Amino acid sequence: MSSFSRFTPLVSSLPSTVPFVGPEAIERNRGISVKARIGANENGFGPAPSVIAAIHEAATETWKYNDPENFDLKDALARHLGIGRENLAIGEGVDGLLGLIVRMVVEPGTPVVTSLGGYPTFNFHVAGFGGRLVTVPYAGDREDLDGLLEAAKREKAPLVYFANPDNPMGSWWEAGAIVEFARALPSDCLLVLDEAYSETAPASAIPSIADLIEMPNVIRTRTFSKAYGLAGARVGYVIGTPGTVVAFDKIRNHFGMSRIGTAAALAALKDQAYLQEVIVRIKASRERIGAIARDNGLQPLPSATNFVAIDCGRDGAYARAIVDGLMEHGVFIRMPGVAPLNRCIRISVGPEADMALLAESLPKVLKALG
Amino acid sequence: MSSFSRFTPLVSSLPSTVPFVGPEAIERNRGISVKARIGANENGFGPAPSVIAAIHEAATETWKYNDPENFDLKDALARHLGIGRENLAIGEGVDGLLGLIVRMVVEPGTPVVTSLGGYPTFNFHVAGFGGRLVTVPYAGDREDLDGLLEAAKREKAPLVYFANPDNPMGSWWEAGAIVEFARALPSDCLLVLDEAYSETAPASAIPSIADLIEMPNVIRTRTFSKAYGLAGARVGYVIGTPGTVVAFDKIRNHFGMSRIGTAAALAALKDQAYLQEVIVRIKASRERIGAIARDNGLQPLPSATNFVAIDCGRDGAYARAIVDGLMEHGVFIRMPGVAPLNRCIRISVGPEADMALLAESLPKVLKALG
Repeated sequence: MSSFSRFTPLVSSLPSTVPFVGPEAIERNRGISVKARIGANENGFGPAPSVIAAIHEAATETWKYNDPENFDLKDALARHLGIGRENLAIGEGVDGLLGLIVRMVVEPGTPVVTSLGGYPTFNFHVAGFGGRLVTVPYAGDREDLDGLLEAAKREKAPLVYFANPDNPMGSWWEAGAIVEFARALPSDCLLVLDEAYSETAPASAIPSIADLIEMPNVIRTRTFSKAYGLAGARVGYVIGTPGTVVAFDKIRNHFGMSRIGTAAALAALKDQAYLQEVIVRIKASRERIGAIARDNGLQPLPSATNFVAIDCGRDGAYARAIVDGLMEHGVFIRMPGVAPLNRCIRISVGPEADMALLAESLPKVLKALG
Repeated sequence: MSSFSRFTPLVSSLPSTVPFVGPEAIERNRGISVKARIGANENGFGPAPSVIAAIHEAATETWKYNDPENFDLKDALARHLGIGRENLAIGEGVDGLLGLIVRMVVEPGTPVVTSLGGYPTFNFHVAGFGGRLVTVPYAGDREDLDGLLEAAKREKAPLVYFANPDNPMGSWWEAGAIVEFARALPSDCLLVLDEAYSETAPASAIPSIADLIEMPNVIRTRTFSKAYGLAGARVGYVIGTPGTVVAFDKIRNHFGMSRIGTAAALAALKDQAYLQEVIVRIKASRERIGAIARDNGLQPLPSATNFVAIDCGRDGAYARAIVDGLMEHGVFIRMPGVAPLNRCIRISVGPEADMALLAESLPKVLKALG
């Protein structure tokens, strides 16, 4: 293929394959329709009716750029969290914000610490800026806080990524351990504490805002994609000190937020009653997934998220065969990418119709695999 | 302010001020309501009714991530333009795509050629990656193709930005001159041909797709923000050779596009009849703006865009006073940032109510200024 000849050496060195395969691509490539979309940790219960109404109302305003300062959404989040607007930055989902954070800290060769098998999009961004990934294995299916701390110190890394609750395992630490970890990190090491799943976690697992808000080397990332049911709207935010958070303004796409997505997020934040309802449904769905797993002789792991990792008791090839087999029945799920996590499959919560199809399909798939 | 101590030297060196002031910020800061929003080159005629319907329909699907491959939108654009899907990349508006292009080519110190007073967001991205801006003055209120070519060669620049039609002046070149310019550039200099306003330009001003599609060092950027009336949806795209365009996949935010915005763009592309109607209205509104200017003794410049630059005949301070004065009447407009372009004000097209308020307010403002 005829390509421009003078991309940077870094960009030239990056793989040109698309790293993320969506369910739509699987449908196109395999000619199968997804009937139960329970693989991408979306929220099949959907956003609140009040949010749908807000989207309808905002539709006619979509000829306008969104406010580049995201004032209203920052203001609402600040009130909701009991912090200042200056403690917040808004971006196109946590994925987009992670890209900005990596860009702020990483130059070619910079060591960056994360868990082996942790969130691949973070790794994608680190590679994209030429960073050197230093990975720490999970311990007992949880990210290893002691190991991450040791690696960050050993490598004199300026950046460490830690998700609580964790994706892809659904595991979590208690707040006290996380605060201790954050305080033990060198002050010149930035902790990205990814809390995309914070709303569905036990309250005891989430540090209070006050616990970390004074620390310039901690950025917490949160999203409207999970419990709020707005994955397609692309609205995420970060919480940090004003001095740290202002750095986003230096490099972000100031007109990157969609107007309708922002209106949807504002409405979703306002409707906390619906959020609480959905969290109850998510927890019930986690139980349902666990029961289906056990009915089939598989072992569900505890989860604080909107998905459940299920130990299938064998190797990655076996788990992959289950993932592929379920897709034959129209059940889209995913699985962790590296051993030993990849003995598991990962199933997102969803409405009862999805669960029923899972319950019906899983025994067939397991039987066919023997 | 207490900030993280170890951002990259480049990020540390960037200014932390918000570079783009939206009308919402002016409203907040000055306590004035915008009644005529004709400053940001949006399209106040709005998107098609069919697009509003598509947004309503997509609302309930917004719990799903958008297809990271943007297959359907690429497919529709490819058919519309008579090219392959592999000639296209999709992104969060031209602004987001420009950031990616700059990242692909620019390292600290890299010379980048653009016009003095050209699109500031491009300059923002160049600064953000440490590039060295080499600017060429406009000639006769048009970007100076000969000057840009000479500067690109002299500096051995790997990147040159040229908008046709141009923002902020609304001027344009004929297609033949642009193709000649593209072919005269060294093959290791990437031309960003920004065609955000292509739909409202004379057909003779836009090179055919075939004219440039074989050139690995040409990327054309287009958007749904202007003629299609979807600025708030954040959907832009680039056209280039497959080998060049694939580079976007190496670094883009694969899940950055909103699901509703994508659905809106698809519907907008389908409704070419509405687009043609709107283009007629845009042209009529340009005439109306020109007439209002002349009625007030000001000189409208020819425009191929959805805005009109108006020569106010004095210096930048005078034009700024007109911009500020109109805002007092609720009329939001903007102006070019540097001399000699800043003898002008820049007014975007809009519905008749906006034009009527402009016609009513402008003489008052000019009279007050004397």
